[in-house]
Amino acid sequence: MQAHIPGAGGTALQAADNCSQPNPGLCSNPGAPSQAFGCSIFPSSTATAARQAGAALQWEERGDVTCPLLFIQLNQLLSTPAGLEWREMARWIKFEEKVEDGGERWSAPHVPALPLHSLFQLRTCLQKGTMLLDLDATSFKEIIDKALSEQPEEAELQPALRERLAALLLLQPQHQPTKSLLQLLAELGLSPCRGKAKGRSEPRTQVSKMPLKEQLRNRFKKKVPQGAEAAHVAVGEVEFLEKPFTAFIRLRHGVSLGSLAEVSLPSRFLFILLGPHGVKTYHEVGRAMATLLTDELFQRVARQAERRQDLMAGMEAFLDELIVLPPGKWDPGARIPPPSHLPAPCRRTTVNPLDQQHGNGDMTAAGDRASPGHARSGEELERTGRLFGGLLRDIRRKAPWYGSDFSDALHPQCLSAVLYIYLATVTNAITFGGMLGDATSNMQGVLESFLGTAFAGFIFCLFSGQPLTILSSTGPVLVFERLLFSFSQDHSLDYLEFRLWIGLWVAFFGVVLVATEASHLVRYFTRFTEEGFCALISLIFIYDSLKKMLSLADAFPINWQYRLDNITSYSCTCNLSSPGHSSAGNDTSLPSPLATWQPPATPAGLSRTQCLDQGGHLLGTSCQYVPDVTLISFLLFGGTFLLCTALKRFRSSRYFPVGVRKLVSDFAVILAILASCAVDAVLGLETPKLLVPSELKPTNPARGWIVFPFGANPWWVCLLSAVPAVLVTILIFMDQQITAVILNRREYKLQKGAGFHLDLLCVSLLMVVTSVTGLPWYVSATVISLAHMESLRKESATSAPGEHPEFLGIREQRLTGLAVFILMGVSVFMAPVLKHIPMPVLYGVFLHMGVTALNSIQLMDRVRLLLMPAKHQPDLAYLRHVPLRRVHLFTFIQLLCLALLWLLKSTVAAIIFPVMLLALLGIRKGLERIFSPHDLSWLDGPLPAPGAAGTHARERPEQGSRAEECEPMHRPGPQINLSVN
Amino acid sequence: MQAHIPGAGGTALQAADNCSQPNPGLCSNPGAPSQAFGCSIFPSSTATAARQAGAALQWEERGDVTCPLLFIQLNQLLSTPAGLEWREMARWIKFEEKVEDGGERWSAPHVPALPLHSLFQLRTCLQKGTMLLDLDATSFKEIIDKALSEQPEEAELQPALRERLAALLLLQPQHQPTKSLLQLLAELGLSPCRGKAKGRSEPRTQVSKMPLKEQLRNRFKKKVPQGAEAAHVAVGEVEFLEKPFTAFIRLRHGVSLGSLAEVSLPSRFLFILLGPHGVKTYHEVGRAMATLLTDELFQRVARQAERRQDLMAGMEAFLDELIVLPPGKWDPGARIPPPSHLPAPCRRTTVNPLDQQHGNGDMTAAGDRASPGHARSGEELERTGRLFGGLLRDIRRKAPWYGSDFSDALHPQCLSAVLYIYLATVTNAITFGGMLGDATSNMQGVLESFLGTAFAGFIFCLFSGQPLTILSSTGPVLVFERLLFSFSQDHSLDYLEFRLWIGLWVAFFGVVLVATEASHLVRYFTRFTEEGFCALISLIFIYDSLKKMLSLADAFPINWQYRLDNITSYSCTCNLSSPGHSSAGNDTSLPSPLATWQPPATPAGLSRTQCLDQGGHLLGTSCQYVPDVTLISFLLFGGTFLLCTALKRFRSSRYFPVGVRKLVSDFAVILAILASCAVDAVLGLETPKLLVPSELKPTNPARGWIVFPFGANPWWVCLLSAVPAVLVTILIFMDQQITAVILNRREYKLQKGAGFHLDLLCVSLLMVVTSVTGLPWYVSATVISLAHMESLRKESATSAPGEHPEFLGIREQRLTGLAVFILMGVSVFMAPVLKHIPMPVLYGVFLHMGVTALNSIQLMDRVRLLLMPAKHQPDLAYLRHVPLRRVHLFTFIQLLCLALLWLLKSTVAAIIFPVMLLALLGIRKGLERIFSPHDLSWLDGPLPAPGAAGTHARERPEQGSRAEECEPMHRPGPQINLSVN
Repeated sequence: MQAHIPGAGGTALQAADNCSQPNPGLCSNPGAPSQAFGCSIFPSSTATAARQAGAALQWEERGDVTCPLLFIQLNQLLSTPAGLEWREMARWIKFEEKVEDGGERWSAPHVPALPLHSLFQLRTCLQKGTMLLDLDATSFKEIIDKALSEQPEEAELQPALRERLAALLLLQPQHQPTKSLLQLLAELGLSPCRGKAKGRSEPRTQVSKMPLKEQLRNRFKKKVPQGAEAAHVAVGEVEFLEKPFTAFIRLRHGVSLGSLAEVSLPSRFLFILLGPHGVKTYHEVGRAMATLLTDELFQRVARQAERRQDLMAGMEAFLDELIVLPPGKWDPGARIPPPSHLPAPCRRTTVNPLDQQHGNGDMTAAGDRASPGHARSGEELERTGRLFGGLLRDIRRKAPWYGSDFSDALHPQCLSAVLYIYLATVTNAITFGGMLGDATSNMQGVLESFLGTAFAGFIFCLFSGQPLTILSSTGPVLVFERLLFSFSQDHSLDYLEFRLWIGLWVAFFGVVLVATEASHLVRYFTRFTEEGFCALISLIFIYDSLKKMLSLADAFPINWQYRLDNITSYSCTCNLSSPGHSSAGNDTSLPSPLATWQPPATPAGLSRTQCLDQGGHLLGTSCQYVPDVTLISFLLFGGTFLLCTALKRFRSSRYFPVGVRKLVSDFAVILAILASCAVDAVLGLETPKLLVPSELKPTNPARGWIVFPFGANPWWVCLLSAVPAVLVTILIFMDQQITAVILNRREYKLQKGAGFHLDLLCVSLLMVVTSVTGLPWYVSATVISLAHMESLRKESATSAPGEHPEFLGIREQRLTGLAVFILMGVSVFMAPVLKHIPMPVLYGVFLHMGVTALNSIQLMDRVRLLLMPAKHQPDLAYLRHVPLRRVHLFTFIQLLCLALLWLLKSTVAAIIFPVMLLALLGIRKGLERIFSPHDLSWLDGPLPAPGAAGTHARERPEQGSRAEECEPMHRPGPQINLSVN
Repeated sequence: MQAHIPGAGGTALQAADNCSQPNPGLCSNPGAPSQAFGCSIFPSSTATAARQAGAALQWEERGDVTCPLLFIQLNQLLSTPAGLEWREMARWIKFEEKVEDGGERWSAPHVPALPLHSLFQLRTCLQKGTMLLDLDATSFKEIIDKALSEQPEEAELQPALRERLAALLLLQPQHQPTKSLLQLLAELGLSPCRGKAKGRSEPRTQVSKMPLKEQLRNRFKKKVPQGAEAAHVAVGEVEFLEKPFTAFIRLRHGVSLGSLAEVSLPSRFLFILLGPHGVKTYHEVGRAMATLLTDELFQRVARQAERRQDLMAGMEAFLDELIVLPPGKWDPGARIPPPSHLPAPCRRTTVNPLDQQHGNGDMTAAGDRASPGHARSGEELERTGRLFGGLLRDIRRKAPWYGSDFSDALHPQCLSAVLYIYLATVTNAITFGGMLGDATSNMQGVLESFLGTAFAGFIFCLFSGQPLTILSSTGPVLVFERLLFSFSQDHSLDYLEFRLWIGLWVAFFGVVLVATEASHLVRYFTRFTEEGFCALISLIFIYDSLKKMLSLADAFPINWQYRLDNITSYSCTCNLSSPGHSSAGNDTSLPSPLATWQPPATPAGLSRTQCLDQGGHLLGTSCQYVPDVTLISFLLFGGTFLLCTALKRFRSSRYFPVGVRKLVSDFAVILAILASCAVDAVLGLETPKLLVPSELKPTNPARGWIVFPFGANPWWVCLLSAVPAVLVTILIFMDQQITAVILNRREYKLQKGAGFHLDLLCVSLLMVVTSVTGLPWYVSATVISLAHMESLRKESATSAPGEHPEFLGIREQRLTGLAVFILMGVSVFMAPVLKHIPMPVLYGVFLHMGVTALNSIQLMDRVRLLLMPAKHQPDLAYLRHVPLRRVHLFTFIQLLCLALLWLLKSTVAAIIFPVMLLALLGIRKGLERIFSPHDLSWLDGPLPAPGAAGTHARERPEQGSRAEECEPMHRPGPQINLSVN
C-alpha cells in the first residue's frame, strides 16, 4: 500500500486495485503502483475484499489463534468544573452503546454509523502516530511511559509535556455502570434532588491497580463471556498540546489494568488520541477506532499484525467493504437497530452480498436456490428395501443414546420444562376431553382423556425414537371421532365396539407401513400439503367452538320478547294432568297471556326434575327460557379468548423484564382459564360445566373399562371396519409424520437423530391398547411438542448487547416427558377441581388455539397480501423473487383446495375426507405444470425426483430456513406452529 | 481538486483538506497540494462540507436557478433469449425503488445504501469518460451520435464499434409500469399461466419519438410534480467492447426523448456506462450515479457546472458528507425505510449533525434548547394595557379576512369536511346529551343538546376569532353540571334558576376577563398543566362510563341464584291487597319457596304498570329481577368499545388503499354506534335506550323553554351564585384557552391569526343565552376542532415515493363550521331515529374517548416507562437528554397531583375543584426548584419570565415541535389530542 508515502493517503479504491493482483502474502508489496488503472476503468475487482479478508482468515488456520471477544470502551476527556476528567462515552462488543446526553443512561445497542471522514482521519492517525505492537508491560503507568517515550522523531514531545500528558492519562475515568430498574428506583427514593455525583468515585485520583467495587458489582459483566479482553480508546482535547498525540498499542498478553475499564478484564489494545483545542472530531475518530476493532476480520489482523503496514492493510480491507448512506436521505440522529440476521464473516469473504442479485444479465435466478448447501444426512428416511429395515436402523441409531437420554436430563431447566409442559398437557387433555365427551355423548370424557394421555405418553416417551414428542389427542382425530360417533348412531352400531375394530385394523396397517418403510413418503409433504391440512384443522376448531357457543343459545334459550311490563305473566308450573292438551291450548287459543292465565290446581311445590320424574310436564310462558346463562357464557367465551390472546402477546411487549413476560406468556392459557373460572364462580350462575366423574369410573356409566370385541354389533362389522380403518390410518400417518418432520427440522440442531419408523410403530401399538380400553387415540401434537423443545433450548450464556444469544441445541432426553406423564396420571384425582370449569371457557381456549394456528401458517400471510396494495406489503423474501400475480395464483389454488375439503367434510361424504388429504399430494404435483421450479422453490418446497429417495430428504430443512429468511433465525418456535393438535 | 492528475484519484480526505482553506470560488484552485497535512493530523476541517455545499447554495441566490425535481431511471442491458434488451431496474425521485427479481414488482422506497467502492469507481468514470455539458440536441439519436463522436482521444472508438453501440443504445427499453391492485387482479384472471411478455412492447424496436400508451397510462405519473425533468442512467456489459465507454451528458434544455423513460418527461441528464463482459459492478456504479443525482446539493452543482472540475468538486462534497455502516454489523440485503424526518439541505450546510451533540468537553446542554429559533410574532397575546385593548386588536386583525373566510371555502374538500365534522358533532351531542340528561334528571337532555349545539356553534362560527374551533359540551362542564345538580337537589334549590344566575355571573366575569386582557395568562399553561387537566377529564370519562354500566346491574338486577331446577318457583304476581305484610312474609317466614307458595286470588291479568297504577304491589320471587338485559348491555358496551378502537386503528393497518382506511377510521365512532344499534335491534331485548322527546319540547316536561330568574329560589341565591360562578369561570377559561392554544400552534401554519380575546367574549355572551333557555353551556372542544382542522389540511399534491406529502396549511374559513351547525339544527327532527340508540352503546363510546384521550398525553408514555426495563424503552427525545431518575420523579409528581385532584373531586369539596386546576400552575412554578431548566425544557415548556409578556409567547409552539422530535412531522393531529370532549 502507499501507506509509507508521506502526505499521500491511498484511497480505498487504490487499495482494492492493488490487492486485485495475485497477492500471496497480505498485500506485502505495498509500493506497487496501480497500473491497472490506466488500461481500464474497471479492473475485475469485485472479489478484492473477499480475497483480502480471506487472506486474513487463512491466518487463523495457519496460526491457531484463539480470538477472544473484545470489549471496547471509549473514554473521552471532558472539562468539568472540577477540572479535566475522563468519562466513559460509549462501549462496544458487537454494537455500539452510547451514554446519553443526560449522562446517566445507556442508549439501546445500535449499528455504529460513522462519518466517512472520521475513518480517513483515523487512517492518518494510524499511519503517523506511535504504534507499539506486542508491548510487554504489567501496569497502565508502564504502558503510558513507553508510549510517550517511543514517539516517532518528527512528533516527539518535550519531557515536561510528556509528564503532564502521563498524569492526565493516568486519571481515574468515570464509568457508567449498568443498573437494574430496582437500583434506579431505590436511588430515586434516596436522593430526590440532584444526585449526579452519587455513586461515583471522586475525580482526580489515579487509575487504581485493583478493580473497584463498582466494577465488580457491574451488571454488565454478565454480558461479557469468559476469556474476553478489553480495548481502550481514549480521546480528548488538551489545551497544552500543539499537535496531536496518537498511539496504538497492542500488549503481548492480556494485562489487567485495574480500574481503567468499566468491567475488569485483561486489556489487549489501547488507542490514545489527544490533540489541541478547537477540533471537534476526536470523538468521531475514537468511535471509528472502536468500530474498526469490533470488526471480526480487522480484529484478527490487529492481533497478528507484525508491522504498521499489516494493520493498514487490514484497515483498507475494512474500508473496501463499507456500505454508505447518502447524505440528506438519512437522519443522522436516528439509530439503526441491530439487524436480526447478520452475514457471517465467512460469507462476507466469499461473495459481495450486494452484487449477489444484480448479476449483470443474469435473469434466471432459478438455479440459485437449488444449490446443495449443507446437505443433511437424510439417512433416517433412506430406503433400505428390506422388511422393517428402517425400523431396525432407527433402533440401531437410537440405542446408543438410551443411557444419555436419562443422564442428559440432570439440569434445572428440565424441572421448569416439566411444569410448563405438564400444565399445557393438562389444559389440552381437559379441552380435548371436553370436546370428545361432547362429540361422543361422553363415551370418551375428560377422565378417559387424562388416563389415556398419561398412559400413552408414558409408553411413547419410554420407547419412541423421538422422545421430545408429546402425544395428545389432536384435531383431526377429534373430527374423525365425531364423524364416527354420528355414523354409529345413524346406523345403530355400538360405537365403542366398532371403534375397537377400527383401532385394531389401524394398528395392523400401521405395522404394515412400518414394515414397508412407508415413512419415506414424508419427503412428499411440502408446505402446500401441510398448510392445506393445518388450515382445515384450524378452521374446524374455529367453526366448532363458535357452533358450540351458538348451540348454547338453543340449550339455554333467551326470551328475546321479554318485556319488563309483562313480568306478572311469566311463570312456569308443574302440570301433572295429561300432557299435550292444556299446554298447547295455553299457547294458541288464548288471545293474551295476561288476560286469562289461571294457575293450575295440581301440586305446585314440585321442582322441575321432581315434576318431570312424576310424569308431569311444565306449563307456562317462562318454561322454555333460561335467563342470563347464554349471555354470561358468551361473555366468558369472549373474555377467555381475548385474555389468552393478550397474555400470549405479552411476550413481545416492552413491559417488565423478559423473564416475567416469558412466564406470563408461557402460562397464558392456564392463567386465562383460571381467571375465567374465578369470574364464573364469583358470579354463581348455572353455566354449563365440564362433566367429570368424581370417581375413577368411565364418564359414561353405560360403558366399562374394557371394550369387548363381539356382542353388540353384527359379526361382519369387524371386517367392514377395515374400510374406515384405512381412512384413520391415513389420518394418523399424516398427522404423526407431519409433526415428526417439523420436530426434526435441521434448525433445531438435534444430535441424536430421528426415528420416524419407530415412532409410527409406537403409535400403532398404542392404538391397540387405547381401542381395547376405550380411551382416545393419540398421535404427536405439534404445538405442545414444539413448546417442549423450546423449553429445553440450550443457548449461549452470554451475548453482546444487541445480539441474540446463540442457539446451541436442545436437551434431548426422555426424563422430562416421562415426568410430565407421571404427573398427568396422578392428576386423574383432580376431578373435583375440574368440574368447576365452565364449557364456554374451554370453547374460548379452542377458538384461541384455532386462530393462533391459522395465523401461524404462511397461507394466511398470503391471503392478507390479497387485501394489501402492493406498496404496503411487507418485505417478504418470496415477494422479492416471485411476481405478485404468481403468488396470488398460488394462494387462490390453495384456498380452492381448502374450500373443496371443507365442502367434502360438510356433506355426507365427510367420512372419506382423510383420502382427500392424500389428494393434496396429487394436486401439489399438478402445480408443477403451472408454476416454474423457481417460483415453487420460493412458495413451496420442491418435490424430490421419484426414485431418488434418500438424497433429496433435505428439502424440508431448506424450506424451513427459507421461510425464516426475513425472520430472526433464533426463534424457530413461533414461526412454525404449523399444526394445531 | 486533483481530478486532472491521471491515475491519482484524490481521496475524500484530501478533498476535504484542500477545501478547508479559504475558498472563494467553488474549489477553483484544484492543484493546491495538501500542505496542511504535514503540520497537523487534523486541519480544522469539520465545516468543510458545509462551506463547500454552502457555496453551491449561494449559486442559487446568485443565478436564480429554478431547480425542478429530477426523476431518475436506471436502465440495464440484459441478455434475454431474444437478444440484448434494456430493462428498467430501479428509479429514484428521493428514495430508491428497485424492480424485484421477479421482474414484475416495485420494491418499497428505501434509502439507497451503496458500496463505497462503487462511488469511487463512479468518480473515476466521471474523471475519465466523455462529458458533454449543455449539449444542444432534439432527439435521443442526436445525443447518442454526439456522445460517441466526442470521446476523449485515448478512449476513442472505431467507427464500426460506434455504430454497433449506437444501435444498441437506441433500443427501446422495457419499463416497469406501476399497476393498481385491480389491474393486477384483472391480469391474473386473464392470463393464468406465464404472462411475462404480456403488456410489454416487443423488444428490438427503436426508442420511439412519441410517448407510448403505457407511458401515458402509467399511474406513477401522479407522483411526479409538474415541471419535473428526467435523468437516464444506462449501464450494461457489451461483449464487443474491450474497454468501458462512459459518458455524462447534460442537455442545455429539457428535451422530451419519447419512450426512453417510464413516464414521459423532458430529459436533462444522461449517464451511460457500457463495458466489457466479466465485470459485475456496472449496476452498482449506475446506482451510485443515480443516488448522486438525487442529492439536492449535487443536483444544483450538476446543473451549474461549467467544467468537469466543477462536477468533481460537487461529488467530493457529496463524498465528504457520507455516513458509513461498518461491514459485518449490517445485513446488506435489508432495506432501510425512508426516515420520517429528514435534515433540510440548509441544515446540512450549516452544521454537521453527528458532531452536534459530541462537543468536546461540552457537558451542559441546557443552553442548546434556549436558542430563539423562529420567534413567533406572539402579537395575539401581547398586553396593550388598555381596557378591551386585546379584543380591539383581535377584531382589527380578523376583520380584513372576513370576506376571504367565505370565499376560501370554495373547494370540494370542504364538503367532505362538513359531512365528517357533522357526524362527529352529532355523535358528541348525542353522547353528551345522554350523559347530561342522566346527570340532571333530563333537565338538559339530548334535544337541548342538539338545539344548543346548533345555536351556539352557529353564532360562534359567525363571530369568533378562530372559526375553525368547534363548540361542544365538554367533559369538565359535564362534571360541573353533575355536581351542581346534586348540590341543588341536596339543598332544595331550583336547579335551572340557580344555573341561570351562575351563567349570568360567568358571562359577566368573562367580559371582565376580556376587558382586562386576561387571556395573556395562557402563557403559563405548560404541558404540566394541560396534562393534569386532561388526565383528570379522561379518568372521569373512564370512571363514569364504567360506573354507569355497573349501575345498570342495579337497575336491571340479575338473579345470580337462579337455578333451572327451581324454575317452577319463580313468578311474580300482582297483589292488590294491603302491601307490606305478605311480600315480607313470602321472603322470610317460609322455609322453602317451593313448598308453600300459593298463587294469590286477586286479579292476575294485570301488567306491571297496570298493577302499580291500581295501587297494588308485585309479589313473588322473580319480581325484582330482570333477566338478560344487564348482560346484553355489557356485551354491547364491550363490543362498541372494541369496535371503535379497532376501526380507529384500522387507519394504520396495511390493508386496503389509504383512502378506504382513512374513511373507515374517520367514521369509526359512527360505524360502531350503527353496528351496535343494529345488533341491539335484531336481538330485540329491552335495553335502556336514549331518552329523546319525539316533539320539539323540553326533554323534562317539568320545564319550559325560558328559565325565569326569580320565583323558585330565595332572592339571595342570585347573589350567592357569584361564588360557584367564579369556579365555572375558571373552568370555562381554562377549558376554552387550552384548546385555543393547541389549535393556534405554529405547526398548523395558520395565516389569519388567532383571536383569544374575541373567542372568550363569544363564549361568555353565549353563556347568557344558553343559561336563559336552559341549554347546555359550550366551550371549544379540542378533539373535534382538531379533527376539523385535520380535514381541512392543504398538502402538496405530489410527493416522491417514500416521502410524506408536504403540509401547506389549513383552509381557514367559516363556511364549513356554519354548514355543520345548520345541519345540526335540522337534525333536531331526528328524534324518532335517536331513541333507538341503547345507552350502553353510548357508554362504550365514552369509554373509548376517555381511553384515547388518556393515551394521547405524554404523561401516560412516562407512566409506561415506569414499567419498562431501561433497555426496552423507546428512543424518545427526552430520554436521550434527561436522566431516567428525573423523568420518573417528574412522572411521580404529576401522578401525585392527579391523585390529589381525584380525591378532591370525590369528597364534599368537589365543587371547588376548578380552583385546584389553577393550583396546578403554582405547583408547576414550584417544580423549578426541583428540576433544572434543562430538564424542564425537555419534560415541560419553560415558563415565561414574569413581566416579559409578549416576547415569550412562543413557548407553546416550541414545545409542540419538541414533542414530535421523534415523531413524523406531518401529522400533528393524533399526537396532541390533549383534551377529551
